[in-house]
Amino acid sequence: MGRLTGGDPSLLRRINSAVVLQALRDSRDGPGAEAPTLTDLVRLTGLSRPTVEGVVEGLIAAGLVLAAEPGEGGTRRQGRPARRFRFRAEAGHLLGVEIGSHRVAALLSDLRGGMLGSTVRAVPESASADERLEQVRAVVPELLRAAGVTRGSLRAVGVGSPGIVEADGTVRLCTALPGWTGLPLAQRLRRSFRCPVLVENDANAAAVAEHWKGAGVGCDDLAVVLAGLSPGAGSLIGGRLHRGYGGAAGEIGALHLLGREATPEETLSTPGQPLHPLDDAAVARVFERARGGDARAREAVERFVRRLVHDVAALVLALDPELVVVGGWAAGMDSVLVPLREELARYCLRPPRVELSVLGDAAVATGALRLALDHVEEQLFAVEGRVTARR
Amino acid sequence: MGRLTGGDPSLLRRINSAVVLQALRDSRDGPGAEAPTLTDLVRLTGLSRPTVEGVVEGLIAAGLVLAAEPGEGGTRRQGRPARRFRFRAEAGHLLGVEIGSHRVAALLSDLRGGMLGSTVRAVPESASADERLEQVRAVVPELLRAAGVTRGSLRAVGVGSPGIVEADGTVRLCTALPGWTGLPLAQRLRRSFRCPVLVENDANAAAVAEHWKGAGVGCDDLAVVLAGLSPGAGSLIGGRLHRGYGGAAGEIGALHLLGREATPEETLSTPGQPLHPLDDAAVARVFERARGGDARAREAVERFVRRLVHDVAALVLALDPELVVVGGWAAGMDSVLVPLREELARYCLRPPRVELSVLGDAAVATGALRLALDHVEEQLFAVEGRVTARR
Repeated sequence: MGRLTGGDPSLLRRINSAVVLQALRDSRDGPGAEAPTLTDLVRLTGLSRPTVEGVVEGLIAAGLVLAAEPGEGGTRRQGRPARRFRFRAEAGHLLGVEIGSHRVAALLSDLRGGMLGSTVRAVPESASADERLEQVRAVVPELLRAAGVTRGSLRAVGVGSPGIVEADGTVRLCTALPGWTGLPLAQRLRRSFRCPVLVENDANAAAVAEHWKGAGVGCDDLAVVLAGLSPGAGSLIGGRLHRGYGGAAGEIGALHLLGREATPEETLSTPGQPLHPLDDAAVARVFERARGGDARAREAVERFVRRLVHDVAALVLALDPELVVVGGWAAGMDSVLVPLREELARYCLRPPRVELSVLGDAAVATGALRLALDHVEEQLFAVEGRVTARR
Repeated sequence: MGRLTGGDPSLLRRINSAVVLQALRDSRDGPGAEAPTLTDLVRLTGLSRPTVEGVVEGLIAAGLVLAAEPGEGGTRRQGRPARRFRFRAEAGHLLGVEIGSHRVAALLSDLRGGMLGSTVRAVPESASADERLEQVRAVVPELLRAAGVTRGSLRAVGVGSPGIVEADGTVRLCTALPGWTGLPLAQRLRRSFRCPVLVENDANAAAVAEHWKGAGVGCDDLAVVLAGLSPGAGSLIGGRLHRGYGGAAGEIGALHLLGREATPEETLSTPGQPLHPLDDAAVARVFERARGGDARAREAVERFVRRLVHDVAALVLALDPELVVVGGWAAGMDSVLVPLREELARYCLRPPRVELSVLGDAAVATGALRLALDHVEEQLFAVEGRVTARR
C-alpha cells in the first residue's frame, strides 16, 4: 500500500471530493427528506467546513452537484435559510445492452442506476454480425428519444453477449451467434458512442445483475447458470466477477463434449431428432408437454435435468458457491429447480442454496448496465482504482 | 476505505514500522552484501531520518532487528563507521505439517521462510485420529531438537490435511482418514503449541506451495490437482487461495458419483476387483505394469486417465486457470501428463498449460508452512489486514 506520509495534495483533493460526492449521492432527497446542507456534509464526512465548501464548489462547476433552493419546510433561522445540495443523477446516463441469439435489448439509467427506459427488438438467429450490430444501433436512439436523453449524456455503455470475451472486448469464441467469433465487438460499437463501451459474457453479466437486484442480493459468492441447450455460468467470488484467466470461466456447457452421453439437443428431443441448439421455443414446448403429462416429454426433461445437474455439480464442486441462481429459459425452468436442489444436495459435499432467477429476461441487460455504472463510479468515487462503496 | 484525514499516530507508527522491517527483511545481508545503514533505510523507505531512528529502536527492543557490527569492508568516514541493521530471521520459527493417510511430515523454517529441517514418519492408514495426532506430537520435538530451535520460538504452525476444513480448523468431512470427520483439528493441536495453528485442506496447501516455490511460480491463476483415486484440487485466483464459501472448493473427486461411469478404484483395477481407495502402492504398480507393456494395465490406466481428464476438465471449465499442476502420486503421474494436455486442449475452450508438480511429496507441508508464514507476516508487515508485499 501507499505510504501516508509525504502528502499528495491532488490525491487528498480527489479523496475528499469522492467522499463528499458519495455522501450526496447516498442522501435521499425525495419528498419528505431534505437534501443535505454544508453543515450536514461536514457531519456526514468528518471533513472540515472549508474543505467541504471548496469541494462542493468544484462539484457544482463539474455539473455533478446542484445547489438546491431551500425547501418550504426548511429550517429557517433568523437569516437566510442554509443552501442545500443534491447529487445530479441526471448529469450522465448509462446503457445496458443485451445482444442475444434471438433479440437485442437495452436499458437506460441515470448515474444512480435509476431506470429511465427499456426496449427489446427481435433479431433472427441467422442474422449476420453486421445485421445484429445494426439492430443495436437502431434501438439506442429510440430509447434515448423516449426518455428525452441526448446521446452526448451517455457516460458508459455495457454490453452482454454470449461467448468468451477478451479483456479488450473482442469475442474470442462464440458458437451461438453467426460471425461472432473474432469480432472486435467493443471496438465496433465504440464507433457509435463517444463513451467507453464494456463488453462482458452474458452469463457473467447475469451474475452481476442477480447480485445487484435479483436473487443474489446480499450474497457475495454465487453462480448464475443460464440453463440453455448449452448452459453457461457466471460467478461472483467475494462480490467480484470471476472471469478466469482467459475470460472463459463458467463455460460448463462444453463438459458434455467429454462424456459419452448425448448432447442437450439430443437429450431434450422427443422424436429422436436433435433440437436446433438455439431453438428455445422448441425447448419450452417440450417442458410444457412434460408438465401436461406427456410421457416422452417427461423422459426428455428428465434426461435434460440429469445433464444439467451434472454440469452444475461440476461447477459447484470446483467453486463451492453459497448460492446457485438458475436463469435462462424462464418458461420451463421452474420445473428444473426442485430436482436440481435434490440432486445437488445428494452429490455436493457442501450443497449450495438453489434459487430461480428474479430478473429473468432482463438479467443480461441489467448486469451490463451495472458494469457500465461500476466503470463510471470508479471514476467518480474511487481513489487508486478502488471503489469505495456500492449502494 | 478509511479517510486519510484526521490522523491516527499509532496507525502511522505501525505503517512506518512495517515499511522499515520489510526493507530490512528484503535487504540481502549475506557475504558480499552489507546490511543497510540508517541512511540506506531513509533512502529505501522515503521516511524521515528521525522516524526511521525511532522505528529501528522499537524493532531492536522487540527482538526483530539487530544492530550489526560494522563489517570489515564497511565504508569508514573519518569518524565512527555507521551502524548497520539486519532483520533477525531467527527471531521466530514456523512449522509446516502434512497429515496424510500414510504419513506425517513436517518442515521447519525461520521468519524468512528459510528451511532449517524436515522429518517424515509413516503412519498406518488405519490409525485412529488420536494415534495420528500422537505422531504429529512426536515428530515436532525431534525436528526442533535437530535444528536447535526451542518450542517457545514457534510463531505459527500450518497444517495440511485431506477433507473439507472449516474456517476454525474443524474437519467438516473427510473420508480418507479414520475418525477425521468432525475432528476439531486446530483446537486439538493448539494444546501442544503456544502459537496459532492454521489448518488447511491438503490440495489447497499444495496450490499455495507450487505458487510459492514450485511449478506455479509467477502464475497467480492456477489449479493444483492431487490426482489420487479420489482427486482433489486447490486453486489460486489472482494469487489468493480460493477456498469456496464453505471450504469445499475443488472437491472434484465427488463428480464420479454423479456419472454412471465406474469409480476410480474400479477403473484402475486390472483383475476386476476394485483397488483399496487409499492404496497408492497398488496404483503405482498398475502404472508401472502399463509402462512395461501389460495390455490390461494399459487399459486400466486409459480408463483412469479418461476419468481424470473429465474431472480436471470440469474444474478448468468452471475456473479457467492459466495453469494446471498435476501432483499426487509422483510415481506414475508423469505418464498422465501428455494425455491430460491433449484432452484438455481438445475440450476446453481456452486450454490451460499443464505441468507436473515440482515439489512432489513435499508440496502439502511446504504449503502449510507458507500459510503459517503468511499469518506471521500479516502481523509483522501488514496494516489493517493487508499484506503489503510478498518476497
